[in-house]
Amino acid sequence: MKIAVVAPSCALSRDAAAQVAALAAARGDCELVIHPQCFLSDGHFAGSDRERLAALREVMADPTVDAVWFARGGYGSNRIAEAAAADLPDAARGKSYVGYSDAGFLLAAFHKAGLTVAHGPMPQDILRNGGESAIDRAFRWFAHRDAAALESDLQPPAMAFNLTVLAMLLGTPLEPDLAGVDLLVEEVSEHHYRIDRLMFHVTASANIRSIARLRLGRVSDVPANDPVFGHDEAAIVADWCARAGIVFGGRADIGHDAANRVVPFGPTQS
Amino acid sequence: MKIAVVAPSCALSRDAAAQVAALAAARGDCELVIHPQCFLSDGHFAGSDRERLAALREVMADPTVDAVWFARGGYGSNRIAEAAAADLPDAARGKSYVGYSDAGFLLAAFHKAGLTVAHGPMPQDILRNGGESAIDRAFRWFAHRDAAALESDLQPPAMAFNLTVLAMLLGTPLEPDLAGVDLLVEEVSEHHYRIDRLMFHVTASANIRSIARLRLGRVSDVPANDPVFGHDEAAIVADWCARAGIVFGGRADIGHDAANRVVPFGPTQS
Repeated sequence: MKIAVVAPSCALSRDAAAQVAALAAARGDCELVIHPQCFLSDGHFAGSDRERLAALREVMADPTVDAVWFARGGYGSNRIAEAAAADLPDAARGKSYVGYSDAGFLLAAFHKAGLTVAHGPMPQDILRNGGESAIDRAFRWFAHRDAAALESDLQPPAMAFNLTVLAMLLGTPLEPDLAGVDLLVEEVSEHHYRIDRLMFHVTASANIRSIARLRLGRVSDVPANDPVFGHDEAAIVADWCARAGIVFGGRADIGHDAANRVVPFGPTQS
Repeated sequence: MKIAVVAPSCALSRDAAAQVAALAAARGDCELVIHPQCFLSDGHFAGSDRERLAALREVMADPTVDAVWFARGGYGSNRIAEAAAADLPDAARGKSYVGYSDAGFLLAAFHKAGLTVAHGPMPQDILRNGGESAIDRAFRWFAHRDAAALESDLQPPAMAFNLTVLAMLLGTPLEPDLAGVDLLVEEVSEHHYRIDRLMFHVTASANIRSIARLRLGRVSDVPANDPVFGHDEAAIVADWCARAGIVFGGRADIGHDAANRVVPFGPTQS
């Protein structure tokens, strides 16, 4: 299983790259190829749009690569996602693509284009508390489609997104068909009032209203609100689901942390 | 000119209310009626959705009220905007409605419903540096439709929104028809990468692509980015306009500050 790492958003830490490469080498079932583009820098991004797109297209077109692993989130994959999913080379099919957070723009575009994608841990997650378990979960899914790596209550077809990323891709060419989907969302570093505002936006969408149910992953590092908002994230999401006639399916086991589990998009659980 | 102040989002400061009432009393051309709802508190909001909506509907239906002034921004008017614009009483027509920032949700909904609305300073702005000039500008527009209060380069029909508010109302029942509009946007307290992401979302909209031009107001209190984003807000907006085939009309004289000017929505400049 040859896994290529590219960074469509922000640059990968060299320390994280070294640690994840060592973990892969110790396993024997995953060969990791970290593309040098991961360490480029162009302001906020891991290289210019052109450089990030070229690296991504290069590994997509490489028939020796079995999987493409997005190095980390941050911001920027939306700037190249539509181009990355256009005119796909044959070799792009039959690979799997894994990431989350900002990489959700690519998951959406690639799933829409018929590729195999999953929400799941990324190399930079090795730097989190307990990050080794997150990396191990990704490897086990890449190499063995290990069911123990999956979010445990999926009712396929499933999809998972960062809530802000989902809100921002609605109405764009990246927006996938959500009809009948078990939709999981998670969030990090957003005030409760912003989560409420995002849910207002998201639940107005007819596409979102066609999902089977909405489930809420972890919402971490919520900045303090003055005054306190008055409702926690589960109450906020349940309220907007009720207003929009969407089934609220309770909590989900994903988030910006080492416990973040794998959610394969589409009809299968593998 | 009887002006009713209500708070569809967050509570008005009592200090601001007293200062603005004193300014109105000293003029002689504006009678200010500050609704007690402005000082209610329910978590983040100036009272519950029901309380905020009831106060707003009450002043809309009052035939002795000539204008409705939104007390301040914050967050929350989106939660009641659709209901506020439904089944309008006759007395709601012929009044003017002024505010900005979060109040943009109401400006959009009310303009769409055929009411006279303008982006402009709000009572809470008295607490800004030089806030008295902002309040004076609002009074002069309310009482005299003073052209000196207007943004100086409007090509009607015009509209003005906070960029985040605009992004969040797209795809909702509040979204107005933007065809041919001179569209002004401004922003506060958002990272450059977030402004880039909002522009990605906004410029994907066919409705947005039908505007006459996009103009950028002030973008203030931008939090530091590490690393620096690499492009300032004007470059970001110009880039997304170019990608989307939208005319970028340069800078506009609006923003979260005391110099914020009045932008009447629709075909007239008054």
